Amino acid sequence: MSDSKTFALKGNICYSLDQTRLAVMEQAYVICENGLCAGVYQELPGRFQGIPCTDAGDSLIIPGLTDLHLHAPQYSFRGMNMDLELLDWLNTVTFPEEARYADLDYAGQAYRIFAEDLKKSPATRACIFGTLHVEATELLMDLIEETGIKAYIGKVNMDRNGSPKLQEESPRISVDATLRWLSDISGKYQNVKPILTPRFIPSCSDELMSELSSIQKSFRLPVQSHLSENPGETAWVQELCPYSAFYGDAYDHFGLFGGEGCPTIMAHCVYSSDEEIALMKKRGVYVAHCPQSNTNLSSGIAPVRQFLEQGLSVGLGTDIAGGHSLSMLRAIADAVQVSKLRWRLLDSSKKALTFAEAFYMATMGGGSFFGKAGSFLNGFSFDALILDDRRFPHPQELTVRERLERLVYLDDGHCLTGKYVAGRKIF
Amino acid sequence: MSDSKTFALKGNICYSLDQTRLAVMEQAYVICENGLCAGVYQELPGRFQGIPCTDAGDSLIIPGLTDLHLHAPQYSFRGMNMDLELLDWLNTVTFPEEARYADLDYAGQAYRIFAEDLKKSPATRACIFGTLHVEATELLMDLIEETGIKAYIGKVNMDRNGSPKLQEESPRISVDATLRWLSDISGKYQNVKPILTPRFIPSCSDELMSELSSIQKSFRLPVQSHLSENPGETAWVQELCPYSAFYGDAYDHFGLFGGEGCPTIMAHCVYSSDEEIALMKKRGVYVAHCPQSNTNLSSGIAPVRQFLEQGLSVGLGTDIAGGHSLSMLRAIADAVQVSKLRWRLLDSSKKALTFAEAFYMATMGGGSFFGKAGSFLNGFSFDALILDDRRFPHPQELTVRERLERLVYLDDGHCLTGKYVAGRKIF
Repeated sequence: MSDSKTFALKGNICYSLDQTRLAVMEQAYVICENGLCAGVYQELPGRFQGIPCTDAGDSLIIPGLTDLHLHAPQYSFRGMNMDLELLDWLNTVTFPEEARYADLDYAGQAYRIFAEDLKKSPATRACIFGTLHVEATELLMDLIEETGIKAYIGKVNMDRNGSPKLQEESPRISVDATLRWLSDISGKYQNVKPILTPRFIPSCSDELMSELSSIQKSFRLPVQSHLSENPGETAWVQELCPYSAFYGDAYDHFGLFGGEGCPTIMAHCVYSSDEEIALMKKRGVYVAHCPQSNTNLSSGIAPVRQFLEQGLSVGLGTDIAGGHSLSMLRAIADAVQVSKLRWRLLDSSKKALTFAEAFYMATMGGGSFFGKAGSFLNGFSFDALILDDRRFPHPQELTVRERLERLVYLDDGHCLTGKYVAGRKIF
Repeated sequence: MSDSKTFALKGNICYSLDQTRLAVMEQAYVICENGLCAGVYQELPGRFQGIPCTDAGDSLIIPGLTDLHLHAPQYSFRGMNMDLELLDWLNTVTFPEEARYADLDYAGQAYRIFAEDLKKSPATRACIFGTLHVEATELLMDLIEETGIKAYIGKVNMDRNGSPKLQEESPRISVDATLRWLSDISGKYQNVKPILTPRFIPSCSDELMSELSSIQKSFRLPVQSHLSENPGETAWVQELCPYSAFYGDAYDHFGLFGGEGCPTIMAHCVYSSDEEIALMKKRGVYVAHCPQSNTNLSSGIAPVRQFLEQGLSVGLGTDIAGGHSLSMLRAIADAVQVSKLRWRLLDSSKKALTFAEAFYMATMGGGSFFGKAGSFLNGFSFDALILDDRRFPHPQELTVRERLERLVYLDDGHCLTGKYVAGRKIF
């Protein structure tokens, strides 16, 4: 199907109007015109009479979901070795596995499984970490390009505190590899784009960070990294960067913490101080909230209500393989769940997230990193999911709103029957 | 297949030896003789040569799981209205829905969906709350009996603090209904048995509790109820029973808190004091730990490590519909997950649960409420699940132990391909 075609999907349409308001229209039409949403209507307006229409029957139609943080090479070991905390898990499981991606055959096998599963998942957009390997990352980009999903993908930079098999030997080598990667892929893709990806402060020397900052400016690249995930990690950053007032300040020191011309995603932010949050707000840094990962790695629960109150941009991430599930629907439920535990156990002055708020984060919240994406408001990219919940029979008639929440909680990965990205039918 | 038959299952066999040790035998045989396990063998011993053998190929074979706490009438609204806390949720959602089970047609529709899904689930045994309605509860028992699952099922008692449509009008009416129920079903079932089910202290007057205690003694019934789930509920019990030293003491006051001849399951125990835990230990009261429910209803995280250290019997429950998922595999992962948050947020002196510990709780831990169930040790009931994880391709060879953990985390409800209860093939 061509991007320029005008067509409609008909079904039970649910989408966020803003952070708290969910629009629900039963048996309505959402129009795609040149890859963009051209309105949701109860009846087709005159100018759209006769356009092709896919009738999704009684299914739900929602905007595509954006996975704002995940690691493609970790997909292979999701759900294994879960009895470890972050830094142990990195050294024992993650680094040895990522080292394998030096072998392009292995990378191909693993990334093909990942790309196929991501394609079938509810994510229409994603911000993805590769490994430090240029060839494997380019292969990953090739494979994701083919899926039709829109993604930022980063070759990882790491020149310290890795392992003998997983570390770039000097800042120069890391920089040269990055430049080679950017040169190789220049102009190559429609759907995927590069994103600068210093792994996290403990993995990147000051010299490397300075060089990456130059690359960021030259190429006007967006940036993704990790921030304040775990108390041990946060303390370590303070040791490594004694000049920094807080973890985020270490990125900011090198100009890699948002601001004009430097769109930045920071994953986790579980232990962000008020100062750090204020700087994120000032610099427009996105939070990729990864509730499942923060649980699995015993990291904690991020203060998401505080982020919202401060007006930060917040999206959700699966953080494969800190998170074990690739489902962004599950991430919505997880976000609500952990926010309730945070309310109960840490701070009863901050209300738990509502379903509508978490749904917003997974759609418009993270989608906005890509521009206008994640809603069916006019002019938004036509990213849509068709979800069939007939596998969950019910003795009563349910409202569409009830069915939406139920589907998010109960989806077993088999509800998704159709997916569109920027007007293009993926399946 | 007759219960008296001797047969073998062949595959990758995983089971708990005790609370911390997991046995894994690749391509081994587990033998069923007269409904009981007769050993796990790498090679078939002479006396078993020639017995029928089902070869599960490369699948995993694990003991059946016991769901120690769930509410059948709440299955219909699982995953909906999740933005409410316990007491609001009971009054707004739960009580109105349970009131519908006065209508036997509605009960039949709803319970058929539940029974069918429970049959297909990884639970081989379950302890189930019905509603206060005698006829609907008997219908539920009929339906579960047909599934082949072994279950304790209780008609609920509640004579106060319900709603106009969901409350027994007097202790006498509740008692008479209970006696009628017990008389109706006497000797009727092979697989299901009655369990005395006072909803929780706030729902049962002192007079009713006294009468139920007499019934418990006359009929030698086991007991199931709720305990220390939520701070508001716990404070309310203190008001309602000023004579009680703590919540569990209110049950104990009426002789409905374990002890000789009164096997008892208490769900939740999130806020159990040291005194309460000590009494549970003394009386042999089982904890039904329901991590997903305690998260969804903003209740908190139970001190499971403390229960284990004190030597309590602990099993897992889905607590449908406080919990939204009927999967006891998911309950294992949830138990590990929330224990990590408890370690991080509440008490770093109590280690998180390991995978092996949570697996034990879902198998032997809860299974022991039914006698010898939940392992493949000799003489245990032959309850077995065959799990096919080929839907999760991997670029490497994995160990069976790795595959088991992965399957528990990733199962989408579609891995279970075979189920046996007490030697009988369910599917």
